[in-house]
Amino acid sequence: MASPTISFARGAPSLDIIDVEGLRDAAVRAFANDPAGTTAYGTSIGYPRLRAWIAERHGVEPERVLVTNGSMQADAFLFEQLIGSGDEVIVERPTYDRTLLSLRARGARVHAVELAPDGIDTDALATLLSEGAKPKLAHIIPNFQNPAGYTLSRAKRQALLELARKHEFVVFEDDPYVELRFSGERLETMLSQDPERVVYASSFSKTVCPGIRVGYLVGPTELIAQIAKLATGTYISPNMVSQSIVYEFCASGALERSIETVKTALTKRLRTLDVALRRELPEAEFVAPEGGYFMWVTLPQGTDVAALFKAAAERGVAFVKGTDFLMEGGENTLRLAYSGVTPEEVDEGVSRLADAYRSL
Amino acid sequence: MASPTISFARGAPSLDIIDVEGLRDAAVRAFANDPAGTTAYGTSIGYPRLRAWIAERHGVEPERVLVTNGSMQADAFLFEQLIGSGDEVIVERPTYDRTLLSLRARGARVHAVELAPDGIDTDALATLLSEGAKPKLAHIIPNFQNPAGYTLSRAKRQALLELARKHEFVVFEDDPYVELRFSGERLETMLSQDPERVVYASSFSKTVCPGIRVGYLVGPTELIAQIAKLATGTYISPNMVSQSIVYEFCASGALERSIETVKTALTKRLRTLDVALRRELPEAEFVAPEGGYFMWVTLPQGTDVAALFKAAAERGVAFVKGTDFLMEGGENTLRLAYSGVTPEEVDEGVSRLADAYRSL
Repeated sequence: MASPTISFARGAPSLDIIDVEGLRDAAVRAFANDPAGTTAYGTSIGYPRLRAWIAERHGVEPERVLVTNGSMQADAFLFEQLIGSGDEVIVERPTYDRTLLSLRARGARVHAVELAPDGIDTDALATLLSEGAKPKLAHIIPNFQNPAGYTLSRAKRQALLELARKHEFVVFEDDPYVELRFSGERLETMLSQDPERVVYASSFSKTVCPGIRVGYLVGPTELIAQIAKLATGTYISPNMVSQSIVYEFCASGALERSIETVKTALTKRLRTLDVALRRELPEAEFVAPEGGYFMWVTLPQGTDVAALFKAAAERGVAFVKGTDFLMEGGENTLRLAYSGVTPEEVDEGVSRLADAYRSL
Repeated sequence: MASPTISFARGAPSLDIIDVEGLRDAAVRAFANDPAGTTAYGTSIGYPRLRAWIAERHGVEPERVLVTNGSMQADAFLFEQLIGSGDEVIVERPTYDRTLLSLRARGARVHAVELAPDGIDTDALATLLSEGAKPKLAHIIPNFQNPAGYTLSRAKRQALLELARKHEFVVFEDDPYVELRFSGERLETMLSQDPERVVYASSFSKTVCPGIRVGYLVGPTELIAQIAKLATGTYISPNMVSQSIVYEFCASGALERSIETVKTALTKRLRTLDVALRRELPEAEFVAPEGGYFMWVTLPQGTDVAALFKAAAERGVAFVKGTDFLMEGGENTLRLAYSGVTPEEVDEGVSRLADAYRSL
């Protein structure tokens, strides 16, 4: 192989957009400002100062917040609390592969509802519900969805909440990318519109760093208390050291600076990807996202993306096949993550991808 | 209440025996020496340098080690992998309350086998097995057991392994206190004697600090690979920041200094407790432990420890009732943790406890 693989596969930031010095300084402050709270066992609700900071950011009482070891652990607790074998769940089509795996492992009956560039097809969902589907929960990634990069419109947020109220299901608003908006208008969370009907999850993986593993849930007080009990039985308390570091990072203003750094870099990566794809691979159809990490690409009907995957690997470029995010279909689709690649790598990577495509 | 409560309840160290400055320095080195590995997503096996360090310490291949968010999370994964509803499990009587809760929550059939000052009654276990018990696993805390403070003798370690081989169950050697030996001779782990039959768990909570939430499993390669898969599905990767900090703490020699600090302090606390109990509460029967955090106290038959608990609380002293660690019986027993109290507090706390006892 000529040169190192360029990876459009992993939804993770490159090191150059992580504020490592800011993290180091936050760590020093964490041990200085609250040595007892940082080093001792906490309780399962998380580091109290960070919990309060998150609550204030969302305009809710701290009792509605549970801080966890990454937001996937938060998902796992929520599913463990709410979803039993045979329970029906709505997901977007396509959706995050780990959510699909996790729901299947719990024996859930998963209904996948088509995702459009303005979000889940709420009409199709309404039809499904009127035909007798009785979901306990709908998993929705409202902003810059993984894998599609699409954002749920304001009108569809309303429509979804109305359906949830009428059919009495929980909306699980899974929102790790919300802070990474490059263009367009920020939309209100569904949580803020119906805090008793929505459970919201987010994370500091995309704004601080993934290795710190700090995520959180916001939801109805009683449900949060139940999940806190589950969490106590699982690990007594989540990581106090890393949550104290995140708190210091947030409280000092480093978070806002970090978000600006990430957004500036990713905007440039996305613009480069957009231009390169149009130039090198005009057969590719896509909607450029308004934020986040991911772009969903559809190749002409009949394109064998599994074969493209192999041809691309031989040329030193990686991506994730669309079929990984679907229960069926999507053989001509793929996900490109531009979060971990420099603009130069984007250009070179797209050239290799186009070359692989021509070789099929 | 006259003065703050003195707590013999929580098995946690006091802040004065935590090396906060050493932790801060380790954090600074973590971000400097391995910024990418510390801040990025890892994989579910844990931070590779720490995994290798642990493997070397136990004289095993790294493939046998999985580093987790605290050792309770390690227990949870092990139980999830091995124990289904109706499966039989051996525990010590008394044992750690969270283990009991966790096994019950999984629907396990728990056999509690009497614990003596030299460890689990292996003759009673042999009888139980010969009568048809078919455990999948025996949970054993070999050193300075929680709650009893007892240590499994060399002879009984052998006997237990022989039973495990004959009856084909896994020995789960749960060993968080091993480094905190104040007196007597360190005994070989059961892991080192039969690495295919034993799964070993330990933690840095007692030697670095609890808030860092770093624990680990050592076991057969195939089982560790299965559990790594479970862990990936639960949280992608454990905390890289805290594992990198622990690695730097260990590699620099701070760990060995911290262990000496903790041992010196706890030796003094235990000695004070021993003397104070003999002086103030000669009715109390106990075997002074050779290490760890806990002392098990038996009061005269008929003593109502539930009533003592209330009378003690009124006098500003807390402990955990023995019944919390048992499925039945033990109404005249209690656990005293001396890990979080200064010698002065030990003296005052025992006076209050004796006063509460006289008030019954």
